[in-house]
Amino acid sequence: MPSFRSTVLKSSRIASSAVLLAAALSLPGAHGAFAEPFSRRDVTKGPLVLAKQGSFFVGGDEVEQTATELGFSIGGHVVINQMYVRYMIPQTSFAGVPVVMIHGSTLSGKSFETTPDGRMGWAEYFVRRGHPVYNIDAIARARSGFDISAYNKVKAGELPPSALPDAFRVSAEFSWQSFRFGPTFGSAYPDEKFPVAAVNEFLKQGIPDLNGVLPAPNPNYKALSDLAFKLKGAVLLGHSQGAPYTLEAALTNPAGIRGAIVIEPGGCGATTYTDAQIRKLARIPILVMFGDHLKTAVPGFPGYYWQDQFNDCKAFVARVNAANGKALLLWPPDLGIHGNSHLIMMDKNNLKIADLLLKWIDKYVRPRYNLDASARKVAQELGN
Amino acid sequence: MPSFRSTVLKSSRIASSAVLLAAALSLPGAHGAFAEPFSRRDVTKGPLVLAKQGSFFVGGDEVEQTATELGFSIGGHVVINQMYVRYMIPQTSFAGVPVVMIHGSTLSGKSFETTPDGRMGWAEYFVRRGHPVYNIDAIARARSGFDISAYNKVKAGELPPSALPDAFRVSAEFSWQSFRFGPTFGSAYPDEKFPVAAVNEFLKQGIPDLNGVLPAPNPNYKALSDLAFKLKGAVLLGHSQGAPYTLEAALTNPAGIRGAIVIEPGGCGATTYTDAQIRKLARIPILVMFGDHLKTAVPGFPGYYWQDQFNDCKAFVARVNAANGKALLLWPPDLGIHGNSHLIMMDKNNLKIADLLLKWIDKYVRPRYNLDASARKVAQELGN
Repeated sequence: MPSFRSTVLKSSRIASSAVLLAAALSLPGAHGAFAEPFSRRDVTKGPLVLAKQGSFFVGGDEVEQTATELGFSIGGHVVINQMYVRYMIPQTSFAGVPVVMIHGSTLSGKSFETTPDGRMGWAEYFVRRGHPVYNIDAIARARSGFDISAYNKVKAGELPPSALPDAFRVSAEFSWQSFRFGPTFGSAYPDEKFPVAAVNEFLKQGIPDLNGVLPAPNPNYKALSDLAFKLKGAVLLGHSQGAPYTLEAALTNPAGIRGAIVIEPGGCGATTYTDAQIRKLARIPILVMFGDHLKTAVPGFPGYYWQDQFNDCKAFVARVNAANGKALLLWPPDLGIHGNSHLIMMDKNNLKIADLLLKWIDKYVRPRYNLDASARKVAQELGN
Repeated sequence: MPSFRSTVLKSSRIASSAVLLAAALSLPGAHGAFAEPFSRRDVTKGPLVLAKQGSFFVGGDEVEQTATELGFSIGGHVVINQMYVRYMIPQTSFAGVPVVMIHGSTLSGKSFETTPDGRMGWAEYFVRRGHPVYNIDAIARARSGFDISAYNKVKAGELPPSALPDAFRVSAEFSWQSFRFGPTFGSAYPDEKFPVAAVNEFLKQGIPDLNGVLPAPNPNYKALSDLAFKLKGAVLLGHSQGAPYTLEAALTNPAGIRGAIVIEPGGCGATTYTDAQIRKLARIPILVMFGDHLKTAVPGFPGYYWQDQFNDCKAFVARVNAANGKALLLWPPDLGIHGNSHLIMMDKNNLKIADLLLKWIDKYVRPRYNLDASARKVAQELGN
């Protein structure tokens, strides 16, 4: 059985320049030259005009498996460890930087689509604000599939039941407090921003987390860095389990990664990243964000508090900035925005939060991506 | 281990009015009043303008599971048997009937998105032709998730390995002949329409089929009929394993189902549907379609030929029409279109094939849906 720390809230490794910096983002004039036209009209209204949309895969390993491993009449070659990517590119004169969205544990790319109560999600909103959006299903999840060979070898008696990789889902009872809808199951905080009336619709997003089948290093890291490179530069925006994927992808190959948005990670690795890793991460703009009510108890995990993860990220941000980095911990309550949950992209003020992220992109992410010499070298190695 | 007949190509129960009728579809003037404007311009060009897009779930059962069953630290309530639905509604003056697309075994809604060689899939094309499209992940697949309780009970030793539900993938070697890319693995038919150069990209779409976890009756049937009803009428378009789902949904509740498009089913149940069932199916327009090269051998299943499934569907269509139905078996080779594979929606002429389906919809599907008395009764029962 996986531990809470090691999986759902995998404290991979990311944290707080002066929180005061965050306030700067709300100042008029802090955003880029192209931000202003959007603020004059409501971009959420009217038809969605796309230059292109569709889906593709990145990564994937071709392997040969037996009939037993496939659970089928004959064996042969299949692909495992591929990543499904669904994209929408807006038809707009403003060419925003592509944004890759990475969901959390027991969830899929659905996280960034329509909210549980039927409002616009971040995927469409970022597109309407001029950014191509690439919304993935992490490897071993949803449309990316997973390696079924261990499962079928156990079923056939070729391996013991203990060889089944860890696989899990989380319950409504766990989610309520851990995702900080309220202090006890069924009761919401007075200022709660998660649409708790639609919690049953949120529960339908819950699917098995089969990361237990993944090899090491987690192939999601390379797939994400390859994707960013293929896009000739992208901001990686990850949530919860997917949050540290943004940093791990940058450590794998930073060439395509123009920024990392780290939402509600289970810690940022302030004490585990080496100095060399911190120096590498200092080369990309990093934004860390947490919701509110960080001292809520997490059922089943006595002593686990989001506040500790927040503090770890604060220390991480300080380390990155001490290495001449551009990291920022943005905590909405510091801006007077209260009651956000762990599932901040589904919260009732999700578009207001998105506006903060977009302002950060405008201010901190390079508007043009130029392949430098080392990036070109990596490109040749990748065969792109 | 599941048999080929019972799973991949589930011969659930659907067949050939005079194939001559099919030819009528290619005649000018056979399509509806709104079809003509589209034929004057290339609808595949220019931006995609959507009135709305997003995703939601239909169905789902809330159940309580133990910590062991969830594979997590604490148990509680989760939802199983929910169906993920992703939709795009065009911004157009032509209000086409909604089309629900249902993928086949070991595949997901990805089937109808971008083709393996990067061309436009049916989902976008139908939208560009004025139809709202609802592209699902079948229950127990991809973003719809699956019930993980048996898996974790086996892993914990509470159930024997034999209690693991059947779960499988299919190999490249199986797919090549069975999906009729060519006569032997690696060699394509001279007139082959599947983009065989991109076969590796197709293989990435392959994910585990976990239908073995589903209860009886298959909850996909009710979810699809509920979806069609919620949409106030829809055409169900199903492929392979998903093809008979269209008919089973209509038998579950025909109130919302304005038509069934049955693509490459593993037979149509010509001899298994009762007369009462056939009379029920005779109330909706039904189109059955198969690709070419139906006599290709299927590896691992000696004696299995698609030609037999085609013949079964021909007999089914005859039974439906004998009961005053409107069923049609449309076989592209009869129209001089050769070389289509099992994966007809990904074939190089996929949009030409789509045009045939759209003409059939224009001709056979009622342009307006009116809830009749019995449908209203069902609506009240469903609480809609």
